[in-house]
Amino acid sequence: MARKILRINMGALSFAYEEVPGKWAKWGGRGLTSVIVADEVDPTCHPLGPNNKLVIAPGWVSGAPAAPSSGRTSFGGKSPLTGGIKESNSGGISAQKIAKLGLAAIIIEGVPEKGKWYTLAITKDGVSFDSADDILGKGMYEVDEILWKKFSNEPAVIGIGQAGEKKLSNAGISVNDPENKPGRYAGRGGLGAVMGARGIKAIVVDDTDGPGVEVANMDLFKTGRKKLTDAIMSHDLTKPGGGLNLYGTNVLMNIINEAGGLPTRNFSAGQFEGASLISGEMVAEMVEKRGGGMTGHGCHAGCIIKCSNIYPDEKGDALVSCVEYETAWALGANCGIDDLDYVAQMTYQCNDLGLDSIEAGNTIAIAMEGGALEFGDKVGALGLFDEIRKMSPLGRILGQGVEATAKAYGVHRVPTVKGQSMPAYEPRAIKGIGVTYATTPMGADHTAGYTIAPEIAGVSGKVDPLTDEGKAALSLTFQAATAFIDSTGYCLFIAFPILDIETGFAGMVESVAGVMGLEADGIDAIEMGKEILKVERNFNKQAGFTSADDRLPEFMRYEKLPPHDVVWTMPDEDLDEVFAWMD
Amino acid sequence: MARKILRINMGALSFAYEEVPGKWAKWGGRGLTSVIVADEVDPTCHPLGPNNKLVIAPGWVSGAPAAPSSGRTSFGGKSPLTGGIKESNSGGISAQKIAKLGLAAIIIEGVPEKGKWYTLAITKDGVSFDSADDILGKGMYEVDEILWKKFSNEPAVIGIGQAGEKKLSNAGISVNDPENKPGRYAGRGGLGAVMGARGIKAIVVDDTDGPGVEVANMDLFKTGRKKLTDAIMSHDLTKPGGGLNLYGTNVLMNIINEAGGLPTRNFSAGQFEGASLISGEMVAEMVEKRGGGMTGHGCHAGCIIKCSNIYPDEKGDALVSCVEYETAWALGANCGIDDLDYVAQMTYQCNDLGLDSIEAGNTIAIAMEGGALEFGDKVGALGLFDEIRKMSPLGRILGQGVEATAKAYGVHRVPTVKGQSMPAYEPRAIKGIGVTYATTPMGADHTAGYTIAPEIAGVSGKVDPLTDEGKAALSLTFQAATAFIDSTGYCLFIAFPILDIETGFAGMVESVAGVMGLEADGIDAIEMGKEILKVERNFNKQAGFTSADDRLPEFMRYEKLPPHDVVWTMPDEDLDEVFAWMD
Repeated sequence: MARKILRINMGALSFAYEEVPGKWAKWGGRGLTSVIVADEVDPTCHPLGPNNKLVIAPGWVSGAPAAPSSGRTSFGGKSPLTGGIKESNSGGISAQKIAKLGLAAIIIEGVPEKGKWYTLAITKDGVSFDSADDILGKGMYEVDEILWKKFSNEPAVIGIGQAGEKKLSNAGISVNDPENKPGRYAGRGGLGAVMGARGIKAIVVDDTDGPGVEVANMDLFKTGRKKLTDAIMSHDLTKPGGGLNLYGTNVLMNIINEAGGLPTRNFSAGQFEGASLISGEMVAEMVEKRGGGMTGHGCHAGCIIKCSNIYPDEKGDALVSCVEYETAWALGANCGIDDLDYVAQMTYQCNDLGLDSIEAGNTIAIAMEGGALEFGDKVGALGLFDEIRKMSPLGRILGQGVEATAKAYGVHRVPTVKGQSMPAYEPRAIKGIGVTYATTPMGADHTAGYTIAPEIAGVSGKVDPLTDEGKAALSLTFQAATAFIDSTGYCLFIAFPILDIETGFAGMVESVAGVMGLEADGIDAIEMGKEILKVERNFNKQAGFTSADDRLPEFMRYEKLPPHDVVWTMPDEDLDEVFAWMD
Repeated sequence: MARKILRINMGALSFAYEEVPGKWAKWGGRGLTSVIVADEVDPTCHPLGPNNKLVIAPGWVSGAPAAPSSGRTSFGGKSPLTGGIKESNSGGISAQKIAKLGLAAIIIEGVPEKGKWYTLAITKDGVSFDSADDILGKGMYEVDEILWKKFSNEPAVIGIGQAGEKKLSNAGISVNDPENKPGRYAGRGGLGAVMGARGIKAIVVDDTDGPGVEVANMDLFKTGRKKLTDAIMSHDLTKPGGGLNLYGTNVLMNIINEAGGLPTRNFSAGQFEGASLISGEMVAEMVEKRGGGMTGHGCHAGCIIKCSNIYPDEKGDALVSCVEYETAWALGANCGIDDLDYVAQMTYQCNDLGLDSIEAGNTIAIAMEGGALEFGDKVGALGLFDEIRKMSPLGRILGQGVEATAKAYGVHRVPTVKGQSMPAYEPRAIKGIGVTYATTPMGADHTAGYTIAPEIAGVSGKVDPLTDEGKAALSLTFQAATAFIDSTGYCLFIAFPILDIETGFAGMVESVAGVMGLEADGIDAIEMGKEILKVERNFNKQAGFTSADDRLPEFMRYEKLPPHDVVWTMPDEDLDEVFAWMD
């Protein structure tokens, strides 16, 4: 059975299955959400108005038999945070279930009667529109629990917290993990507000008796799957007992700190004296010492990397999954906070309220810079989440993220690009990632073109993080490869093995070709990635973006970053070169 | 003595007089602030960062002997509200004093030590930098009073309220009037925050023993002055006992309401049932009945139009100057409030806190739309100003204006262009003003190209407000003429007589030529206006503005406005045509 589009109209409370039109047929995941958004959403529409849409798509291989680490669900729409196109993908258990229902994508459009809220339940029989009154105003931990009781078969739950209900720009979309916890997020860009603007509190996906994922060429798929699996299982970063498995992404805390690229106290320094106290090694130590937690946790069935963790509280009870690098950095180093227990509690709050933790940590740092509290004030920082929970005016400011908070407090040191705040890598000290921040259509985003791989981790060669040279080309290659990987459904962490191990890359392509019924040598991953980037950049151009939006914030051009005492020196011409091939 | 530039550096707390460079020599007022900003401010700088500048310039004729109604001071910089170039001009007593000190412009750059605040006192001897500790945190009514006690000769006081101190995007710059009240504002675009970011709470200007304004050709000046004065004194709208003199700008309330173009309850209707209760006629009635107030008030020496008023409270004491049309509309009709006493009290709050009243009224309407209070809740609306005074988080939201408030409350019906909210004319019902809102480099602004003159008032002909046709060309002509008038120092209200009376126009040009030492026929007002617009549009282009920024908000394209039940139908091509001559 060919994949279908499920189109849901929230105005009419109706749904329909549609054939996948030819122009969309070759896409999955990010590629598919982006082409649909570009085709169907007016780039000049208001992101929270009736004419934006929320598009959900699993990747090509998600749900295919034993595809390794392939649980990514892409969410797309016009972003309330950046004003541009947005794709944000999440782990958790939704991708495989959507795919196994035979769906290439779900398109949600229209708005219901004002004040009405719905839980959508998607099964093989279609969509039901239930009142969400029982879960409205509740945090995602409770929502997930209620919905697993209400619906059978341990469904995927895609939901928004209070932030999304109030349509705040830092609202993410939560996906539950195998333990039915809401720690997996399509966090960036405020798509939770886009979902809230459609009157949807949660979407339950039950794939029971669904048709499953059609694999057009099972032999080719299996060949590719094996090569990719072997590569993942043998690479130092992704193998069992490797860096990611032992310490999670937070293995980076000490490494990036050592490199002088750990943004500290609202991007005012590149090293944090308390880095080791919030590192992955410390997470592992806490899990070991306290019990009740876990390292090497997987966020969905079939993950063989297992970079997640469950962080335990002082009493040895599971507190939150997961304390990863970005989260520990944003809520830790960047706020001058060196206490993992507070970082973990704030992470829980982000997961519950439905906030992107990167933006949330940056927001607290801005509030600190603006004088609302002191850097390092962990008690005060944790208390800010109560304001969001109460939806006090302060909560409404903070819930919108960095730019809104900076404006409210008159702060001009604002580490954003296209309205979205930077993740855990200082672009003044690691230049390539700065090029990615500046030029990706997504706004400042490390996952959009992770040049950290060669600049810091020595994956696919080693390049000097402090030099400007060659970084434009490097970033483009990574952005294109990423756009492709984001379309596969595979976790981006397969990038490490496939960039270092040639057969791994070939295997990835073959597995995709196998599912889609294409010839493996007919897939040029970089070219397809560039095609996606072009669609996204064109949407942004129509939305009003120019080269002026492809720049890092002004203060990084004149403020030296210790310890290297470097400023951002990348010539504008280099930044403009990244996408010059489009013109 | 030739005009000089006074350059003030707030980092060094130093100042210097400079010759006016040749490239700036022909400009005054808006023309001068805009060319200086374009030449000296990086369009990509952060508006509140160290590299923005505040430029102040009187018009060409301000301070010249008996130049009628010529008290405008232009303020320029990069706007924190729009992110583009901004010129906002004010009445009050500053223009003539600056001009009589022989200054073409004051350029303020640099930032002082963090936490330091200054009062600058400008006299013929230069600039003194006094601590502003005695006025910090105070509202403008008290500031003006303190500074007239502290400094001799009843100086001009240019100051910011609490909003500017906190660098909020709706902070305006206040200029005192002849009674030393702070009701005159360079309100739009947040330039008060730019002044605050330079650590300046107030600028006192004392022109005692200054050199005065050099008039190069006194005969020509006098000839022009007489023609212009005669035109003003004979036109129905501007003559003594004419519409503006009797009822002020608020003579428009009933007229625009009648035309179905009075934005009501956050731009959801074009007529307000309570319009007559907040009209200019009602202001006059209150003044008549209560005493203690005044109509036909002038905002600076030498005004012969005198459109201002002093509104009295119930006890017959002067409450506030002035309740004008925009203010009465923004804080009245647009909030569903039909009580002039509340409108007047809110106007006082705007003047005291240092807020643009147009943006403030729109902001309250957005808070109402977002559910923070009900439309028509005058007590609640007035109470919101306490929040700004306390600088509570809610106050910080509201003090930033419409877009910030809309985001905080998840509102998508947002009547802004380039981040600045619309004034008191509904573009769906009066199409030409919509073209001005959309395309002026200033963000939604009626004064930038007041097509209301022909569309409603029958000045310079009469055109149908409801037709799209010809409005692009009409708006451009008005925008160009306005840019010229904004450079003269004359009040924009001279536009009515000079557009209808040919000798009035010639007189204006001759008076300018007389001051500047030019031939009258060497001045092409429209061409010079276009030159200014070009400088401004180019700045914005470099700041990242595109044609997507020259559009009205999406909801006006799909939401019908009663009573005419019209949507915004102007073709994008027409909007792009307005400035097509630049390319």
